Amino acid sequence: MTPCLLLDEEQMSRNILRLRDRLAHSNVSFRPHLKTVKSIDVARQMLVRPEGPATVSTLAEAEYFADHGVRDLLYGVGLTHSKVSRVARLRALGTDLSVVLDNVDIAEALGKAARDSGDRIPALIEVDCGDHRGGVDPEDSSTLVAIASALTSSGARLRGVMTHAGQSYQCRSVSEITRVAEIERGAAVRAAATLKAANMSCSVISVGSTPTALFGADHGGVTELRAGVYVFFDLVMAGLGVCQTSEIALSVLSTVIGTRPRERRLIVDAGWMAMSRDRGTAQQRIDQGYGLICDTSGRPYPDFIMLESSQEHGQLGVRPGSESPLPPLSVGDQVRILPNHACATASQHEVYHVIRGQPAVVQTVWHRIRGW
Amino acid sequence: MTPCLLLDEEQMSRNILRLRDRLAHSNVSFRPHLKTVKSIDVARQMLVRPEGPATVSTLAEAEYFADHGVRDLLYGVGLTHSKVSRVARLRALGTDLSVVLDNVDIAEALGKAARDSGDRIPALIEVDCGDHRGGVDPEDSSTLVAIASALTSSGARLRGVMTHAGQSYQCRSVSEITRVAEIERGAAVRAAATLKAANMSCSVISVGSTPTALFGADHGGVTELRAGVYVFFDLVMAGLGVCQTSEIALSVLSTVIGTRPRERRLIVDAGWMAMSRDRGTAQQRIDQGYGLICDTSGRPYPDFIMLESSQEHGQLGVRPGSESPLPPLSVGDQVRILPNHACATASQHEVYHVIRGQPAVVQTVWHRIRGW
Repeated sequence: MTPCLLLDEEQMSRNILRLRDRLAHSNVSFRPHLKTVKSIDVARQMLVRPEGPATVSTLAEAEYFADHGVRDLLYGVGLTHSKVSRVARLRALGTDLSVVLDNVDIAEALGKAARDSGDRIPALIEVDCGDHRGGVDPEDSSTLVAIASALTSSGARLRGVMTHAGQSYQCRSVSEITRVAEIERGAAVRAAATLKAANMSCSVISVGSTPTALFGADHGGVTELRAGVYVFFDLVMAGLGVCQTSEIALSVLSTVIGTRPRERRLIVDAGWMAMSRDRGTAQQRIDQGYGLICDTSGRPYPDFIMLESSQEHGQLGVRPGSESPLPPLSVGDQVRILPNHACATASQHEVYHVIRGQPAVVQTVWHRIRGW
Repeated sequence: MTPCLLLDEEQMSRNILRLRDRLAHSNVSFRPHLKTVKSIDVARQMLVRPEGPATVSTLAEAEYFADHGVRDLLYGVGLTHSKVSRVARLRALGTDLSVVLDNVDIAEALGKAARDSGDRIPALIEVDCGDHRGGVDPEDSSTLVAIASALTSSGARLRGVMTHAGQSYQCRSVSEITRVAEIERGAAVRAAATLKAANMSCSVISVGSTPTALFGADHGGVTELRAGVYVFFDLVMAGLGVCQTSEIALSVLSTVIGTRPRERRLIVDAGWMAMSRDRGTAQQRIDQGYGLICDTSGRPYPDFIMLESSQEHGQLGVRPGSESPLPPLSVGDQVRILPNHACATASQHEVYHVIRGQPAVVQTVWHRIRGW
């Protein structure tokens, strides 16, 4: 039944190996981010060991992966007061869950929970390396030391620093990604040096994003690397030069439900509900609309994209300016649609239909979780 | 726990009454579209009778609502071959499910299924009134008659015609909506006249979208009206002039997790996972970013919007060009965020937290379904 989410397991394995190979001769530990996959079946293939380490983006993910035996977890979104008790509860059940924060207020709230539970809850100080989403300026020594002091004096534990170069998604070339990776590394290492100079312990120095993990030239001073979307890749990553479109492991299977030859359009039964509203390639050199259209073997048709989408309808057509012909597709024919953003498209689906072989055969179904 | 989806039940009831009052003195039947709500608890308040009529956008919705006693259902997305057997199965269980189609090929496939099952499956011919998403040109008499003939001669049943003025979402004024409503009505009525002139029965003439349902001046010749988003409203509808922002019944509750006074930004724990990536107001006169920020009572802060979003982070700030001050919010404070597009934002959540009263108190939780 279409639309549905296809996961090419062999391509996924190659993507996992690619990053593993890259990190094989480095001294950094790898903590995959599971927010992209939200599935223990995929996570098991990404994890270095079944018990972790891993990164999550919600406490619902933390609880789910802990239930499935992942015991070393980093909750990578700035903590709030109302979530402290849930963190403490999960730790009391035996999970080594650490948190990130960037202000004294939350550090003290965490300390209070730590004292109440008799558990020195570990925290990483979030550092802003230029993404400006959250985090302390790495040059702001007084704030870094104030948070670190608040943590240790209040009863919590300072485990280290973390940063994420989200700006790597806006790079225009691989060499620019390499420069951003160096900025990311530098910010984390400098913040850690500030803490160490103030006699604060800082055992973890954690950095990462898929582009910087794959194209960073130097891990000097870093102890841990994080990445998530590398497992599937997507059109945004291909547009950055991080992967080829042939390396994208995720696609949406869809059926042609109408043809409009006069407007050179085909209508399919995948709209934004199946693709998400993500338009991450809109600012890239090649705008892929709501997705790049492939035949059922996964080979892209030239310049054939989803131009418009409504809830359950996608309008396919040739990219404006292209002279490529409209593929000879009729009502009832199927296509595979590569997503702009794997995290966003996968989140629209309850399950992965795991395919292998050529022609692709669905081997099994893997469930995803959602919510907070 | 934030982020979570709040539904103001009293406001929702007023929105439902508004359209009901508008249709009270007309002769058209009302078939609410349940794709926005995907919840039997909300649907029960929209439905004229518990058994329907209603419109759905997926067969998963059809099965779910049929399970909950809604027996008169229109599946409003163009049928494909692979879905015919599922339609026949649902009908065999006692649901009067009708389908829409716009080509002879599917009409014949439906006819074959009808003969096989001994059930004259009813279909509406989809007409294109200018949205160009699907449907037959209303002036294309030969195609209209060919589809109607294919339906009746193959063993299925022609129930009527349907059209949807999706272009009403791009209108710039209420008077333009009224004009589009007249185009929508005219297309359906002309297509029906073509079929009747060819001695085809056409008992249902179905039109609708929330804007045209609320601002259409004339229902002459129409037998049935459809609308969905009117139940919640959203910022796109407010931007069109269809509602006030104070009439939006849906919001996302979120917590401040960081402050960046230098950049005049606040960071909250609702990103695109909670809001969706929908940027439906981007082309309107007032761009609301990823949502308009309100205090916990639901009153908007002046010009305060979500400027950027990542998966679990939202960056709030004052709209560019505005001199409004940054609201005095600190880490741990909560805000309510009005969505651009109710269908898209609601689909990111598993449940509605139904609130009533001032200050709002969560009365109950209503579940939503998803998938296809």
